[in-house]
Amino acid sequence: MIRLTFILFCCAIINAQPSTADKNQLKQFYDLALLEGHSYEWLDYLANRIGSRLSGSLGAERAVAWTKSELDSLGLDRVYLQPVKVPKWVRGSKEFALIETAPGITFNVPITALGGSVATPSVGLKAPVVEVQSIADLAIIGRENIEGKIVFYNRPMQANLISTFQAYSGCVDQRYDGAREASEYGAVGVIVRSMNLRLDDFPHTGSMSYGEQDVSKRIPAAAISTNAAEKLSYLLKLEPKLKFLFRQQCKTYPDVWSDNVIGEIKGSEFPDEIIVVGGHLDSWDLGDGAHDDGAGVVQSMEVLRLFGKSGYRPKRTIRVVLFMNEENGLRGGNAYANSALANNEKHIFALESDAGGFTPRGFSFNCSDEEFAQVESWKPLFKPYLIHYFEQGGSGADVRPLKNKYNVLAGLRPDSQRYFDHHHAENDTFDAVNKRELELGAATMTSLIYLYDKYGLVNPVPSTLKQ
Amino acid sequence: MIRLTFILFCCAIINAQPSTADKNQLKQFYDLALLEGHSYEWLDYLANRIGSRLSGSLGAERAVAWTKSELDSLGLDRVYLQPVKVPKWVRGSKEFALIETAPGITFNVPITALGGSVATPSVGLKAPVVEVQSIADLAIIGRENIEGKIVFYNRPMQANLISTFQAYSGCVDQRYDGAREASEYGAVGVIVRSMNLRLDDFPHTGSMSYGEQDVSKRIPAAAISTNAAEKLSYLLKLEPKLKFLFRQQCKTYPDVWSDNVIGEIKGSEFPDEIIVVGGHLDSWDLGDGAHDDGAGVVQSMEVLRLFGKSGYRPKRTIRVVLFMNEENGLRGGNAYANSALANNEKHIFALESDAGGFTPRGFSFNCSDEEFAQVESWKPLFKPYLIHYFEQGGSGADVRPLKNKYNVLAGLRPDSQRYFDHHHAENDTFDAVNKRELELGAATMTSLIYLYDKYGLVNPVPSTLKQ
Repeated sequence: MIRLTFILFCCAIINAQPSTADKNQLKQFYDLALLEGHSYEWLDYLANRIGSRLSGSLGAERAVAWTKSELDSLGLDRVYLQPVKVPKWVRGSKEFALIETAPGITFNVPITALGGSVATPSVGLKAPVVEVQSIADLAIIGRENIEGKIVFYNRPMQANLISTFQAYSGCVDQRYDGAREASEYGAVGVIVRSMNLRLDDFPHTGSMSYGEQDVSKRIPAAAISTNAAEKLSYLLKLEPKLKFLFRQQCKTYPDVWSDNVIGEIKGSEFPDEIIVVGGHLDSWDLGDGAHDDGAGVVQSMEVLRLFGKSGYRPKRTIRVVLFMNEENGLRGGNAYANSALANNEKHIFALESDAGGFTPRGFSFNCSDEEFAQVESWKPLFKPYLIHYFEQGGSGADVRPLKNKYNVLAGLRPDSQRYFDHHHAENDTFDAVNKRELELGAATMTSLIYLYDKYGLVNPVPSTLKQ
Repeated sequence: MIRLTFILFCCAIINAQPSTADKNQLKQFYDLALLEGHSYEWLDYLANRIGSRLSGSLGAERAVAWTKSELDSLGLDRVYLQPVKVPKWVRGSKEFALIETAPGITFNVPITALGGSVATPSVGLKAPVVEVQSIADLAIIGRENIEGKIVFYNRPMQANLISTFQAYSGCVDQRYDGAREASEYGAVGVIVRSMNLRLDDFPHTGSMSYGEQDVSKRIPAAAISTNAAEKLSYLLKLEPKLKFLFRQQCKTYPDVWSDNVIGEIKGSEFPDEIIVVGGHLDSWDLGDGAHDDGAGVVQSMEVLRLFGKSGYRPKRTIRVVLFMNEENGLRGGNAYANSALANNEKHIFALESDAGGFTPRGFSFNCSDEEFAQVESWKPLFKPYLIHYFEQGGSGADVRPLKNKYNVLAGLRPDSQRYFDHHHAENDTFDAVNKRELELGAATMTSLIYLYDKYGLVNPVPSTLKQ
């Protein structure tokens, strides 16, 4: 029985050999992207002329206006803004920090406030330091060793994990929850080792949360560069009574209005079946957000541009969505999904590019086994482009709220080795993006969107999903 | 019949499921490389402390001495030098070039002499320019349009080829043969567009040859940066009578002695079966040769170091060979192969890393179909490390002379997208190499060597290959 199933399975695979038309269509997309692509020029503008784009900032609003006007110029069927209320957290003056091993003996170290953190007192916060490897350590060492101190979370990303995103997931609780947890043990501040696999001098910011914690208990939190984390840890062994001083002036303001930027090509046969491709328009305020997620933004715009240039008229509605506020709120992703549900829009497939502009390796799919079997049958089409990674798993933060039990979500998976060298840091800049790698990503995304447009899902999404 | 063969084929694949021991061994290699690797530190020294290492230069000799002493420190069974006579070409003072569109109206442009080229007259060479797209164009436009002019070869690398090495192969005849061919039509000099897919300001050197051409007919040849090539081409359209002036002082000296550096672990069961892993120790004299081929050198050394650290005792003899003079002569590769033949050494497998220190994607194999089937059966072992590219094709320039009809040669195939941004140019520097990517390459090489050590070839190599 197993043997028969296996033979049938082999036959199914043989039957699913991709057509010559599909091969040729993919070749055209890759040729257009590599020979006449526009994504790199767009990224140059977004990164170098607009720069960082934290939600609520002038940069974010300029990015909204500029991407809308670029989409307008593509001759799409519809381009519009979707208002969304976003948090507004402002860093203020550059942070300052030093290690004091004895009165007058100090070492300056690079830090950056975590997004959402409160400020220190205006003269700074100075306290002894206790180093821990995890939030769980807090309970072990106890309040008596934490009260009045700065907690220093120093668990590094695990270097022997091949996926750097997995290494990130294994550490980021220190950054996100570390301050709230340490405060419960009487800590006065928190310093977190940057989420970076390299030893260098860039502190990496990122979101943190106090949850529902009372305002009186909220303590300031900052990230320290990996080199400085190593130094602090070393000095603590020599001088456990050393003190750490840091000063940051960040502040949370009331929410403000911003927008998701949306453009679409209306489907010629099934206009009510919507395919989304997107990235997030906001970035952290360090660097210029070239990889995170300028790359995803321009690649997503390029998908629609390549459809136009290729002359291929989609059967289904292809929509680019540039989401606002992925970094510190996900308000754009949630607003888009809520609106889709309210308007009874049928989203059959959504693809996000939010893992950097590096050489694409494939996709991760959030879908049923049956839908996954379909996409796996397309894999041979991608072999000439060295796209080999098709796995079930997550998709992207912004598209995730669109998930229902019928549709398929996916995330582009570029090579991840260099990503966290730049992530949320001052060196996430245009020059770290390679033109060809960026363009290959755009062509790979366009190819997958094309296949979903042409073949749809194995099992159709019902016409209404509303409860 | 086809059906039966297919079922048998499927069964064969199922039977070849890799063992848990192999899985664990690969995991140990990857863990060691990523957690306690030494390749990056070695590369730092080789690139930053020694620097460029053109054959016959002081840098090359320092690299020989230093790598030998590092191999000595690994506690191998044998470390030795293999003398090899190499060409000695010296660049002299930095080159100078300008475009003169009218008397007194000039634009400086970055050029670099091609390796092996003769000098210009000491005051420089100034002549009108004729632009061509290929060597074949010379015959078409004819001597009357070439005589007394500088031929400007401007065919760019083809951007829509996914393999940048393929794009390189499609262009490099302009650099290697361009001067010799143009001289036959009376050209006085040659300028070649750099072998670079990016538009930037770095001229890329590389080898050229006059073949057996009479010394009196040899004309100087230089590469021009891609940006300057675009500018020259544009200006030629505006002013076809413009002149180009360049000056270079390069010179070929008599051959000098240098060495291949060799270290080995003697096989415990089949010491006469030799497995080679290597890269080339020489580099061009621009930049510090970090990718080409510092990466291959330190990765190859790391293979033997990882064997030592892992506690795995090889059954066959594992030999690291750091070849001298790949760039402009291949004398090291030829000398090693000649010596192997003379001493009746039985080389069953040789692997070269000479395609940059980027994220490894797999290997290219020069072998019979039967041997290829064996290595394909090992492919699942590499999946956790995202190694997916196993194809029949070339190996590496230095190991190629070892080929016979029995053995297997292979080349590491890293991601190629960024390689020609740096290849043979001033920006082939240590900072362009990512530590993890380099280490992943070393672990991937070690894993393949381990499998060949453990399982040997499908068909044994006869005990004598001498004619």
